[in-house]
Amino acid sequence: MSLSPTDRTTITRHRERASDDRADLFAVLDEALVCHVGLVRDGAPVVLPSIFGVDPDGPDEGGTLYLHGSVAAPWLRQAPGATLCATFTLVDAVVVARAAFSHSMNYRSVVVMGPARLVVDDAERVQALDLIVDHVVPGRSATLRPHTRKELAATVVVAVPLAEASMKARAGGPVDEADDLAAGVWAGVVPLSVTAGVIEPDREGPVPDDVLRRVAGWGGASAAG
Amino acid sequence: MSLSPTDRTTITRHRERASDDRADLFAVLDEALVCHVGLVRDGAPVVLPSIFGVDPDGPDEGGTLYLHGSVAAPWLRQAPGATLCATFTLVDAVVVARAAFSHSMNYRSVVVMGPARLVVDDAERVQALDLIVDHVVPGRSATLRPHTRKELAATVVVAVPLAEASMKARAGGPVDEADDLAAGVWAGVVPLSVTAGVIEPDREGPVPDDVLRRVAGWGGASAAG
Repeated sequence: MSLSPTDRTTITRHRERASDDRADLFAVLDEALVCHVGLVRDGAPVVLPSIFGVDPDGPDEGGTLYLHGSVAAPWLRQAPGATLCATFTLVDAVVVARAAFSHSMNYRSVVVMGPARLVVDDAERVQALDLIVDHVVPGRSATLRPHTRKELAATVVVAVPLAEASMKARAGGPVDEADDLAAGVWAGVVPLSVTAGVIEPDREGPVPDDVLRRVAGWGGASAAG
Repeated sequence: MSLSPTDRTTITRHRERASDDRADLFAVLDEALVCHVGLVRDGAPVVLPSIFGVDPDGPDEGGTLYLHGSVAAPWLRQAPGATLCATFTLVDAVVVARAAFSHSMNYRSVVVMGPARLVVDDAERVQALDLIVDHVVPGRSATLRPHTRKELAATVVVAVPLAEASMKARAGGPVDEADDLAAGVWAGVVPLSVTAGVIEPDREGPVPDDVLRRVAGWGGASAAG
């Protein structure tokens, strides 16, 4: 199944930056730590940052994106049935060019749009919450006690199909006009990445493997805590 | 002037995480490299990543947020007059707790909502574009040639007042239930930051001071390129 199956997720600007490969989409979702969820409230757009989980083989078309929050959160209470937009952005570099107009960013971004489904099945709710924990620290959920009834009752889980999506990416150096190339202005790329600092333990004892692996994946001088 | 002047930007969940200090808001905008802009298109929410510029003393109430893009970008063409939402998120740490439910993130996020104003005055347009370049690399615009007529004609600039906004932040360690504290599960905080990698020059010659300062601000082992 291809990406961008609808007009509203078809990229109109910089089409050369569009990707139509679902593996690229899942790679961005895998690397992104938060997404930005858009919804319409009283006719106005609202964008909120949120962690999330992904089940590529989930019950929704194209796979399932899971969002969660408190039963008291207004945006989640109103979400089921409505269309949500979830956008995932990785900033890879600043592209410094010879003219202001040619400055750019290297990035990978995914926009997902779809109807929000309230997850009511207990098994799917538990799996979704585990996927959300494991998205942040892979393997973590298997090391934790089961969710309690009280915790599950306090939590809303919403699913969005990953069917309707688009992906855009830019890579490479500055693209300047010929006239500007001769002007002697410096240009180049500053790569950016997320790195982990020194782990701050809340209790003594060895840092578990799941956390160490996650930190090693981010890189950083103090990965071993 | 305080933040959250309207119901729709008043924080309802985790009110202890709300900030009402405009200096905190400007600090988040200063540090964020991209924002996520929400708008309503055909009744559905759309969220797009965008770079931006900030003028705390701009002509709009509370200061001015500037967004820009191609005249061919559909979202910008429809923006003037409509309400936009711009959300700025800094992920500071992953909070690893003893129970799935207690896992969290440390973050600072700002949500701005307001009517988009098409910037038509040439002087304000030029200043906005310079602010956008300088937001990514402070001081850069002063080292570049002026914008050309053609570049200005190809670019739409939109302003949003920074009056209606809310800010939320979490800091500190995991907050676990008393029962879980005794269970012997490791917990702690993994700080995260954006760091610069090795600069990739597009031409020979010394890296200019504006770029070096910007890279030094991000940190990273290879800040000197």
